[in-house]
Amino acid sequence: MKKGISKEKYNVAILGATGVVGREMIDILEKRQFPIGELRLFASEKSVGEEISFCGKSIKVRLASEKEFQGIDFIMGDTPTEISKKFIPMAVKQGAVAIDCSSAYRMDPKVPLVIPEVNASAMANHEGIIAGPNCSAIPIAVAAKPIDARYGIKRMVIATYQSASGAGKGGMDELADQTRSLFSQQEIIQKVFPHRLAFNVIPQIDSFLPNGMTKEEFKIMEELRKILDSPRLGLAVTAVRVPVFCGHSAAVAIETKEPIDPEEVKKLLQESPGIILKDNLQTKEYPLPAEVAGTDAVYVGRVRRDDSVPNGILLWVVADNLRKGASLNAVQIAEVLIQQHRLD
Amino acid sequence: MKKGISKEKYNVAILGATGVVGREMIDILEKRQFPIGELRLFASEKSVGEEISFCGKSIKVRLASEKEFQGIDFIMGDTPTEISKKFIPMAVKQGAVAIDCSSAYRMDPKVPLVIPEVNASAMANHEGIIAGPNCSAIPIAVAAKPIDARYGIKRMVIATYQSASGAGKGGMDELADQTRSLFSQQEIIQKVFPHRLAFNVIPQIDSFLPNGMTKEEFKIMEELRKILDSPRLGLAVTAVRVPVFCGHSAAVAIETKEPIDPEEVKKLLQESPGIILKDNLQTKEYPLPAEVAGTDAVYVGRVRRDDSVPNGILLWVVADNLRKGASLNAVQIAEVLIQQHRLD
Repeated sequence: MKKGISKEKYNVAILGATGVVGREMIDILEKRQFPIGELRLFASEKSVGEEISFCGKSIKVRLASEKEFQGIDFIMGDTPTEISKKFIPMAVKQGAVAIDCSSAYRMDPKVPLVIPEVNASAMANHEGIIAGPNCSAIPIAVAAKPIDARYGIKRMVIATYQSASGAGKGGMDELADQTRSLFSQQEIIQKVFPHRLAFNVIPQIDSFLPNGMTKEEFKIMEELRKILDSPRLGLAVTAVRVPVFCGHSAAVAIETKEPIDPEEVKKLLQESPGIILKDNLQTKEYPLPAEVAGTDAVYVGRVRRDDSVPNGILLWVVADNLRKGASLNAVQIAEVLIQQHRLD
Repeated sequence: MKKGISKEKYNVAILGATGVVGREMIDILEKRQFPIGELRLFASEKSVGEEISFCGKSIKVRLASEKEFQGIDFIMGDTPTEISKKFIPMAVKQGAVAIDCSSAYRMDPKVPLVIPEVNASAMANHEGIIAGPNCSAIPIAVAAKPIDARYGIKRMVIATYQSASGAGKGGMDELADQTRSLFSQQEIIQKVFPHRLAFNVIPQIDSFLPNGMTKEEFKIMEELRKILDSPRLGLAVTAVRVPVFCGHSAAVAIETKEPIDPEEVKKLLQESPGIILKDNLQTKEYPLPAEVAGTDAVYVGRVRRDDSVPNGILLWVVADNLRKGASLNAVQIAEVLIQQHRLD
């Protein structure tokens, strides 16, 4: 697929097809009328045999293996890193382009880490694998990119409000079950999150590093630097899980090199690809995760001056972590690759 | 009461006695064995006649009026500002000291804005009214004070995770009702919060100011500057409501004048009054609002270096907004006043 393909239809494989991101991918491929020849769906043993409908047909979920990847043009997925590392090289060796939403390859210097609106050009010399960033890094990068291009970002202080679905279907179920149990005075069962999430917030996502950061915080930092091509960008991140089913939010304080003005920033964001500015204080309009879930854009609101630094601005950024934060971004990457080939 | 009283027992009036903060005040007065002579409870018309138990006795809730304040030593409450402004001057004129948790008097230059652990000395020349700060400002000020004293704070970037009870009992009921309605597919009723709070986060607390801040954000900023006696302290605040019943949390990024070290800060906080350091990453211990609700201290955890500025530190701060954030702080103020008189 790397060189000179310009097909009418593409064979697509989904790894982790029964997971929350996998299911969104299938839905998005259908809704966006992605030019699919054959769609092959893979998942772990316990889901094998399940049937998922796609464009009016029912597709059986199978177990991934080397020979299953023959003839595949694109392989996409958001699986545990060990699954990505096991299967993606098999598919790439057979000519597929992999678009991997896991963290397996994101920081590999040979792998472009891509959000099409932000750095599509980074894909120019890909070697078969393209990574999709962390679901909190994506919306922040989309919102920060035009600001960085115009004003030069020096530092960002970020506090996230990340939904249960960031931990997959198990996370969403755990939030629902815990909530029901609390109301009916049943025992609270807690497996996915390190503490009860229902009616609580948890300042830990993923495990801790020796420096006291969580891996999630570290990923957001290093991925933002890579996506924005700004290796020395100052970043301070606190990643927090909140009892929301879907939609990741972030309070972002941005310090720029050049003088910055909130009204100018609003205009700039409005004109930027992939962003919907929702910022009307009179009508109490600003992005809310419960409203953003199920939509495609990155929503920005609460744009205001931060007087505590010479050039400062505060933003509130929300996106559907399963869609723009993972599945949609992956499909958009594939669309750009096809587009680039067509234009070649 | 201002001059030379040193009684064995004090007559206390509570304004808004049937509200969530009022009820906590009554509970705290009993549990801390506050030296009470008579306790008089006041509330709005709809609660008049309710009986509240205190130290084994049942006290009838009455309507506040000038003559009801005769002989009162302390009047405390957390009521709407117009209620504070109506009744507090009446009580003070008759010799009571008012400890007001509303925002009515907080920024009055003649009124000390007090957290006993932070600035008890500000009460030295009070003129009858002492204000308790905003429920998010209190825990942040308690955590920041020792850091400011040792390292000199230049700037703080704060993102809050504020619970429903910050909006009173109505807020807690609305969160519970909305959650139940969502599970039973009933209509969502929304009166207290500007949007649905159940399984959502709302980046608006109180109304908006022309500069794009909310009043809540502005209060946190100006109150922190007053409490820390640091009028030019750099502050950037985003105040967000989260679907938690009780307990306000905040992600706080602090930039100091002097070099700062996380391990030193942990020791410093551990030795500081009113703070419990909860920071053990191995055992996943850090403050959680669901655990902190019902307790008295300000809990600090996730203490770590912020490399994005020369001298930076990140903290996660949680306290019970009804107790340390309001009622307990008020009772502690009264205790300090009594103590100071005894020492005079």
